Amino acid sequence: MGNSFGNIFRFTIFGQSHAPAIGVTVEGLPAGEKIDFEALQSFLKRRAPGGKYSTSRKEADAPEFISGIKGDGISCGSPISAIIRNTDTRSGDYSNLKYVPRPGHADFAAMVKYGEGRDYAGGGQFSGRMTAPLCIAGGIALQMLEKEGIKISSRIVSIGGETDEEKMFALIDSARAEGDSLGGIIECVAEGVPPGIGEPMFGGLENRISQAVFGIPAVKGIEFGAGMAVGAMRGSENNDEFCFENGKVKTIGNNHGGILGGISSGMPIVFRAAVKPTPSIAKVQRSVDMLKGENTVLEIKGRHDPCIVPRALPCMEAAMAVALYDALLEAKPGGLQNGH
Amino acid sequence: MGNSFGNIFRFTIFGQSHAPAIGVTVEGLPAGEKIDFEALQSFLKRRAPGGKYSTSRKEADAPEFISGIKGDGISCGSPISAIIRNTDTRSGDYSNLKYVPRPGHADFAAMVKYGEGRDYAGGGQFSGRMTAPLCIAGGIALQMLEKEGIKISSRIVSIGGETDEEKMFALIDSARAEGDSLGGIIECVAEGVPPGIGEPMFGGLENRISQAVFGIPAVKGIEFGAGMAVGAMRGSENNDEFCFENGKVKTIGNNHGGILGGISSGMPIVFRAAVKPTPSIAKVQRSVDMLKGENTVLEIKGRHDPCIVPRALPCMEAAMAVALYDALLEAKPGGLQNGH
Amino acid sequence: MGNSFGNIFRFTIFGQSHAPAIGVTVEGLPAGEKIDFEALQSFLKRRAPGGKYSTSRKEADAPEFISGIKGDGISCGSPISAIIRNTDTRSGDYSNLKYVPRPGHADFAAMVKYGEGRDYAGGGQFSGRMTAPLCIAGGIALQMLEKEGIKISSRIVSIGGETDEEKMFALIDSARAEGDSLGGIIECVAEGVPPGIGEPMFGGLENRISQAVFGIPAVKGIEFGAGMAVGAMRGSENNDEFCFENGKVKTIGNNHGGILGGISSGMPIVFRAAVKPTPSIAKVQRSVDMLKGENTVLEIKGRHDPCIVPRALPCMEAAMAVALYDALLEAKPGGLQNGH
Amino acid sequence: MGNSFGNIFRFTIFGQSHAPAIGVTVEGLPAGEKIDFEALQSFLKRRAPGGKYSTSRKEADAPEFISGIKGDGISCGSPISAIIRNTDTRSGDYSNLKYVPRPGHADFAAMVKYGEGRDYAGGGQFSGRMTAPLCIAGGIALQMLEKEGIKISSRIVSIGGETDEEKMFALIDSARAEGDSLGGIIECVAEGVPPGIGEPMFGGLENRISQAVFGIPAVKGIEFGAGMAVGAMRGSENNDEFCFENGKVKTIGNNHGGILGGISSGMPIVFRAAVKPTPSIAKVQRSVDMLKGENTVLEIKGRHDPCIVPRALPCMEAAMAVALYDALLEAKPGGLQNGH
Repeated sequence: MGNSFGNIFRFTIFGQSHAPAIGVTVEGLPAGEKIDFEALQSFLKRRAPGGKYSTSRKEADAPEFISGIKGDGISCGSPISAIIRNTDTRSGDYSNLKYVPRPGHADFAAMVKYGEGRDYAGGGQFSGRMTAPLCIAGGIALQMLEKEGIKISSRIVSIGGETDEEKMFALIDSARAEGDSLGGIIECVAEGVPPGIGEPMFGGLENRISQAVFGIPAVKGIEFGAGMAVGAMRGSENNDEFCFENGKVKTIGNNHGGILGGISSGMPIVFRAAVKPTPSIAKVQRSVDMLKGENTVLEIKGRHDPCIVPRALPCMEAAMAVALYDALLEAKPGGLQNGH
Repeated sequence: MGNSFGNIFRFTIFGQSHAPAIGVTVEGLPAGEKIDFEALQSFLKRRAPGGKYSTSRKEADAPEFISGIKGDGISCGSPISAIIRNTDTRSGDYSNLKYVPRPGHADFAAMVKYGEGRDYAGGGQFSGRMTAPLCIAGGIALQMLEKEGIKISSRIVSIGGETDEEKMFALIDSARAEGDSLGGIIECVAEGVPPGIGEPMFGGLENRISQAVFGIPAVKGIEFGAGMAVGAMRGSENNDEFCFENGKVKTIGNNHGGILGGISSGMPIVFRAAVKPTPSIAKVQRSVDMLKGENTVLEIKGRHDPCIVPRALPCMEAAMAVALYDALLEAKPGGLQNGH
Repeated sequence: MGNSFGNIFRFTIFGQSHAPAIGVTVEGLPAGEKIDFEALQSFLKRRAPGGKYSTSRKEADAPEFISGIKGDGISCGSPISAIIRNTDTRSGDYSNLKYVPRPGHADFAAMVKYGEGRDYAGGGQFSGRMTAPLCIAGGIALQMLEKEGIKISSRIVSIGGETDEEKMFALIDSARAEGDSLGGIIECVAEGVPPGIGEPMFGGLENRISQAVFGIPAVKGIEFGAGMAVGAMRGSENNDEFCFENGKVKTIGNNHGGILGGISSGMPIVFRAAVKPTPSIAKVQRSVDMLKGENTVLEIKGRHDPCIVPRALPCMEAAMAVALYDALLEAKPGGLQNGH
Repeated sequence: MGNSFGNIFRFTIFGQSHAPAIGVTVEGLPAGEKIDFEALQSFLKRRAPGGKYSTSRKEADAPEFISGIKGDGISCGSPISAIIRNTDTRSGDYSNLKYVPRPGHADFAAMVKYGEGRDYAGGGQFSGRMTAPLCIAGGIALQMLEKEGIKISSRIVSIGGETDEEKMFALIDSARAEGDSLGGIIECVAEGVPPGIGEPMFGGLENRISQAVFGIPAVKGIEFGAGMAVGAMRGSENNDEFCFENGKVKTIGNNHGGILGGISSGMPIVFRAAVKPTPSIAKVQRSVDMLKGENTVLEIKGRHDPCIVPRALPCMEAAMAVALYDALLEAKPGGLQNGH
């Protein structure tokens, strides 16, 4: 059931890179909610290919909403299903990959798991393109959270280890020129989350957000607040002391990243995630031919981003949004349903 | 539903630090499996208090198995329920904490979430003591994985930033003397996991393991393989190339930490997690009195570990084990049920 | 989460009667399974309108498979999504129903639940048309079960209390002439189910099948084996004794309907379900105007079946199939995945 | 996962008839709820053995609450776990049943499912005794529903086909004298359920209630409102027309049993369930010896009820209660959690 996420606001992503379509079915959005489709389209555009640093595949990424929305753009309580047709597919580009797994890709694991049934064209269901449906669900969640006063944003912390913004993009240019790729670090913040949201133990906000964020291909690490650095800290340094500020309880500092015991503290929720360099590089790489049972070398064709970090920003926001909105609905269920 | 984990091998942890008991109910263990209770007890002992660097609370942590096991120590297919009686509780120690949240603890978030209903004695359901039931479920999972040739181990990478083992413990001694505490980094490795285990997207091994690991109080970050460092890498450097080795597909290097596209590659599964310093420190800290609505200072009494990192080792192994065993049963369920 | 069913073979139905489309997203079908689309279309045709005793709405009910299937008709392990475009919709027909609930329909309950957001055109998400996606999921499950030697069939036991087949249809003719409708009883049987499938208590086959069958609008009762009649029996009469037959354990008689303790016994699984008369009748009925807050009378226009029992047959088979196939995958999961 | 029920108010039943204990772990009860333990004990007593028509096994059925409740009897938001020790067990009584399945019991199905691991003593996890934990969870749900103005009651409709109350019990006496047993029909009603509770399709109230009710051993059929009889009705007869009564929408008649489209209509929710005669009878019955692979005869010893229908009444109320309370929490504004 890997393609589904959430308990109340629960969605299932479907499709493969070269299937007729990709899409998402979303259950649990309360009835009567107005969706701003223009804002949603703008959000999706941030993820879509077409920018200077992205694949040359052309996709409008304009979802068609086939259920759950009435003529006036209002949710009706029925599951919302949205699809994006796959148009600019060139399956021929992938024919040499059927039995030769690409280093850093899911190919080998998928071969073992799915056998001959596997759809390998364009990465199949492991394609980065599957983040478009995530952004549809996330874009809807973002709008619902905004109505509750919750705002989510993200920024690039570093690319290829470089934190200076101009130098980052110079690095990408040189990586591209060399047929190579670059990873990076993204920070994502949710402001305005009321305290008391989340569940203990395995239902905590860190658990849910990380479950969503690792759903974005290429993420290899996630940290909240001070993150991995807490390992080098003393309690007296790491503890965020409490104080009243304008009648509200706040903490001095935010090493805890807005989450204590899995539950929101009312402080901004902050995570950073590491995105690995795009595994598809132009350089010749060693691999295996699983049909012939021998070592071989591989040259990857097709269209690929030298660095997906910029396009991953809305995906991180979407992942944060679906996790938080689901937890919010769980904490005050029916609440949103029956008029708030 | 924060206290439950897993799809097939699904368990629910219950109890509070000062309730009559804590425990766990485990569904989904196939019938006919022999459990080595002596080995399980040894595993639990690694987590139990009593060591030089732990709280002075004395608890035998000897679970009573009240269901799911027949007289001969064999699982019968019914849920396994195990309880540990709470004996050495001194609830009086916590009376000053009812309305004054401890910095770094779940107290404030729990107050907002549960209101007056909250059980604050000993940290209630947010106590580190709740990792004992996790270790019961995890200890059973570890034994089942071993039958499948999968071995899980863990080690301390660093404490307070120090990686030298002798110096680490000297650091803890000085932190304790100063009424302070220390965090650390733990690495956990699973060897022998066959390729093809896990689901795409939100059901991937990274998603599941991180959901389990963030269930351990104090964890603020997790990374797989090269982890956060992939953000500073090039694709040519990060990609693990494939080769045949004794007729099996391996990768040269393991930056991917044994997981590609959420699915096991057959290489060792490796994660590192950051454990924050114990928030309960002897030093006076600023906090708020939520009853009086004013700032105050807090001095925490009670018995606490200056560094929980050593005791967190079996918890990490347990978290890895429950996530992997659940994924394994999902991938070849019934398999185990119907005789392997 | 009412629109989803199943644990392993899990599907979500979406759409409304007058939305752009209706459809279903199916997770958990193992990769590498060939689907016979012609047989599936024939199965769907049994449910589709067009027969002598059905609504005059014309719908081809030809699903488009937009994901999860490779070009060669083989499942690839990714969720299967299929949609049916709604074409012959006449929303105007329903404008008088916005605030006046139809007796016997979900209208009033839906008004309270969804408020102004509700999509009332054509019954919205409560339309009998939503059984088409159920039949897509069920039709796939039926084919998978057949590969395992399991065959599902159904028959009309009675319509309007009449069990003679010719008289049944005469009854429908006269009900139609009078602007009235008729209910009936359907029996559904699954042969070839191996013993040992199902879970105890709430995961039993009776629990799962009834959860699926009550998902078909108009069902008001379900019974297994001797069913409601067991209430008037003695144990010596109701107990099915065991015997060996050709080396296999059988029961003499099948009052238990193939299910004991929630688990299959190897005997045919038998249920009967009562389908209420179509609530949309031409006769004038008393109702309320919820906008004006007063009693009123209602005359229902639109196209409706005088008796949906014949079209409900494939729906019952679909409900039985999804419940059994899900339980089968749970009992020997991975089994099917990893080569059977 | 057959031992668990519910989405928000979710509980897991554990134990076997002759294990050290049976019990239940309940998640999702909001914090701050007072439980009346005396009333709960009275409720459990209605199910407990000891009456004239029940087994002679003596069990106090007095649960110990080991977690989730604070000293003052208030729920604290942590899972509630309650256990009942098994004391009066005589496992020797069952030694002849290891390989010879009792007609009408789960024995054979369990042998196939669990193999040698199976715990057959006293019926193991299939014992009617497992309804005691159901009544603990249900008894708590009943109290919560009462706070919301919802009252659940039940009555015996018939035993052995007899509806006259005096004659019923005479029938039981004669069945007992003959070493035989009797089935019966129970009706259960929930009054005061507000309209709008429940989900469409598979999450409807009929689906949920039937999933719970078939969890009670011996139930072979369930019907709502007019039930199986709708099959013989006309729409004009079955449809419940709407009218205003004291400013509230009511229906004239209740053939729909308080549920339309899976959602509550505000009218009383009514179901009837058929309970089969206790399969354990003193009469000699034909069975098979699965070890020897030959036909045999079986004489059942042990203590058994000639008719479990009276003791099944609280079980039906419990099943109704857990299904309704779970649906109510799902529908209701975080309501219950955040102060109502």
